Amino acid sequence: MRSGLSRFCDHCRRTLGRRSKSTAIKRLLDSPQSSATVTAWVRSVRKQKRVAFAELNDGSSSTNLQAVLTPEHAVQLNTGTSITASGSLVRSQGTGQSVELQVDDLIVLGHCDLDEYPIQKKDTSMAFLRKIPHLRPRTATFADVLRARHRLVQRAHTFLEEQDYLHVHPPVITSSDCEGAGQVFSVSEPSKSTPTDVIGSGPPSNFFGRPGFLSVSTQLHLEALAASLGRVWTLAPTFRAERSDTSRHLAEFWMLEAESVCDSLQGLMDDVEQLILAMVSAVPDLPLSPALLAKPARWPRITYARAIELLVAEQDQKQTFSTSVKFGSDLSSEHEKWLAEVHARSPIFVHDYPAELKPFYMKRLEAAQTAECFDLLVPHIGELAGGSLREDDLGRLQLRMEQDGMNLDAYAWYLDLRRYGSTPHGGFGLGFDRLIAWLTDTANLRDVVAFPRSLEASRC
Amino acid sequence: MRSGLSRFCDHCRRTLGRRSKSTAIKRLLDSPQSSATVTAWVRSVRKQKRVAFAELNDGSSSTNLQAVLTPEHAVQLNTGTSITASGSLVRSQGTGQSVELQVDDLIVLGHCDLDEYPIQKKDTSMAFLRKIPHLRPRTATFADVLRARHRLVQRAHTFLEEQDYLHVHPPVITSSDCEGAGQVFSVSEPSKSTPTDVIGSGPPSNFFGRPGFLSVSTQLHLEALAASLGRVWTLAPTFRAERSDTSRHLAEFWMLEAESVCDSLQGLMDDVEQLILAMVSAVPDLPLSPALLAKPARWPRITYARAIELLVAEQDQKQTFSTSVKFGSDLSSEHEKWLAEVHARSPIFVHDYPAELKPFYMKRLEAAQTAECFDLLVPHIGELAGGSLREDDLGRLQLRMEQDGMNLDAYAWYLDLRRYGSTPHGGFGLGFDRLIAWLTDTANLRDVVAFPRSLEASRC
Repeated sequence: MRSGLSRFCDHCRRTLGRRSKSTAIKRLLDSPQSSATVTAWVRSVRKQKRVAFAELNDGSSSTNLQAVLTPEHAVQLNTGTSITASGSLVRSQGTGQSVELQVDDLIVLGHCDLDEYPIQKKDTSMAFLRKIPHLRPRTATFADVLRARHRLVQRAHTFLEEQDYLHVHPPVITSSDCEGAGQVFSVSEPSKSTPTDVIGSGPPSNFFGRPGFLSVSTQLHLEALAASLGRVWTLAPTFRAERSDTSRHLAEFWMLEAESVCDSLQGLMDDVEQLILAMVSAVPDLPLSPALLAKPARWPRITYARAIELLVAEQDQKQTFSTSVKFGSDLSSEHEKWLAEVHARSPIFVHDYPAELKPFYMKRLEAAQTAECFDLLVPHIGELAGGSLREDDLGRLQLRMEQDGMNLDAYAWYLDLRRYGSTPHGGFGLGFDRLIAWLTDTANLRDVVAFPRSLEASRC
Repeated sequence: MRSGLSRFCDHCRRTLGRRSKSTAIKRLLDSPQSSATVTAWVRSVRKQKRVAFAELNDGSSSTNLQAVLTPEHAVQLNTGTSITASGSLVRSQGTGQSVELQVDDLIVLGHCDLDEYPIQKKDTSMAFLRKIPHLRPRTATFADVLRARHRLVQRAHTFLEEQDYLHVHPPVITSSDCEGAGQVFSVSEPSKSTPTDVIGSGPPSNFFGRPGFLSVSTQLHLEALAASLGRVWTLAPTFRAERSDTSRHLAEFWMLEAESVCDSLQGLMDDVEQLILAMVSAVPDLPLSPALLAKPARWPRITYARAIELLVAEQDQKQTFSTSVKFGSDLSSEHEKWLAEVHARSPIFVHDYPAELKPFYMKRLEAAQTAECFDLLVPHIGELAGGSLREDDLGRLQLRMEQDGMNLDAYAWYLDLRRYGSTPHGGFGLGFDRLIAWLTDTANLRDVVAFPRSLEASRC
């Protein structure tokens, strides 16, 4: 009976919307008007003898609108109920809100059976909420994360526009493995003759005339576009079939990647720092924002060699690390975190890694045998962004690729970029989900992504 | 020898950038200054006895900057050469440009052997350029398309922000086929034991614990997010393993999808029209823009039933169509194009299709046996966007899904959205590549996408 209580016939529903147009709660809070209609969800309700109060949220703002109701109106309401409410907007007599809606007219759009509703006060642990990704945006915490993501995206667009970057859409399906790590997902056309549950076991797909993979980075394609457009960027999904089931890894994640004609690694680091601070300024109320915005000083920049010195000294004195530290080895996650959390107590750039640790495309400083590259390390997260100047000399690039045993034919198009009007250029990639996790001080990446994809987890 | 002619040692290169900072040509044209340094590509060069002229482009603007050079400087230059040029910026004496750069100092960054360079005046057909996607952004036509795409994306972001829509990132890898058309790509982890060339033939991947597909639409996930955030949108890659090798199909394409709490199909159509006109206003110099912006009148809206009447009358009179027209059948591409090109001579909305032609999630008007949905048809392209109100009643939705023989367990999460605080809601999807093809009057979708993916084509 309940689910039919306030459903409408087609006619009613068609005329309902015309009776009074709903206003976003955000608008009402920003510029109050004398009367209003809102369509929203009840986040909580307090029923007293003569009056009831409901906290209404329509997603437009993290601030709820308090509604003042009669006990009769409130009978049908509990957490999760969706309603359309009309009334007068008055200065609130209580604390915690500037205005409140004194409801004259109320329509229940959708009931919510509180006995069955999984979003309960008693269990809102992140681990529990991860099991109901389709419902967890209804919690204030998660909705705040999604609104922060929105603001960061918007600010990235406006900031990079100001810097003359063009937004581009490189391909998601590729035929190359940019990072050469071999952790790519394969894309194929399901064989029509096999049932769905054994998809993947059919003959090799030949849809593209060659194997298709999901992109691990858009960099190589961005380089092609930068060779014509000068400055390009994208915010795009990237993929790793990495069997690392940690709080810092996802199989599908969004990366902000930019590529430009440039010849200075220091300039690239400036760009990354300024971009991040610009984005943070759009969400000044996040846990980490105040500290970042209060500090006008440039984030520290040290060479890889210096980082190793610091880590070796720390290890000699305090045996801090479980993995070994030595020149020529990659920094492990614990080393990266120590540099940011303990040594710098701020984001820190580590640059000029040994060339042999880095992919073929990075520009080398021959004398030092280092690559002109950097990683940006931040507290709690470790690597947040990485970038480099790219090898723009055809001869040098070919030599490096031959040394690495790569198939030059497969990269003929990439070599062409150095063959015809090559320029010094470079770029960076910034893990967008990691950025959000860092700024919101969220421990697990799965808790900043609406529908996380990771090892053995693609529910919904 | 040539390729080494003007390469720099590490030291030179590191100091080069500091000598003089390049300014984007767009900036110079917008607000001229007395002297400037630009880094750009030579688009063409005219060498005379005492003076030479080069058209320089750095991607920031479709307008070139004319450089005035000495014959000595010009010796090293031809189409495709990349340079850094410094000099004074003076009012141009010639026609076609307001300012020109009188070059004092010139560095060749990268030569371009014109004998080998594939971008030649003699063959710039779209079909030829499609074979060199990594170089074709260097043509003025294609770079213009990419700049138009950028402007449309930027305007979508600002316009939808004004409308209180939040930008979200739904998943690309899904476990469901939203449209039920079965043309999904399968995602799997390549078997480590098989060589790369037979990827796909290994055992079924169990990376996600269930089959993984590439999303054909983000709608179902957007619905979950709209049920908390009210208004959400995304611009995301979507995929179809459709073996239609036509000029209007791609295996990978970007879709702008939006979902909101709303109860009026007419309102949804308003939203789509206003969004498109807002985007067009950001690129007023495209072939179609002037006509669209000059017309303040609302685009025509007709029911499917009326569309069939018109098509039948046309067919009876002139035998225009090769496919049959009858009530209850889907409109074919030629029918859609005729409605927009011949009947309306403008974009046209066709709404209220027979429910049985449309997917399970669309709201039905029981009395008329129609779905509350629309397609937006435009000249030359046909379907550009489609949208509907969604069935928000749990009982009705379940019944429809059972009738369609769907697995309700797999969609339990989707049904939950109607179980807990359901609201009337709806949304639309707009083919972003088709929009660009339409506005730029480009015949083949492959020619508006940087690296198109289609049947047997994923070069680069």
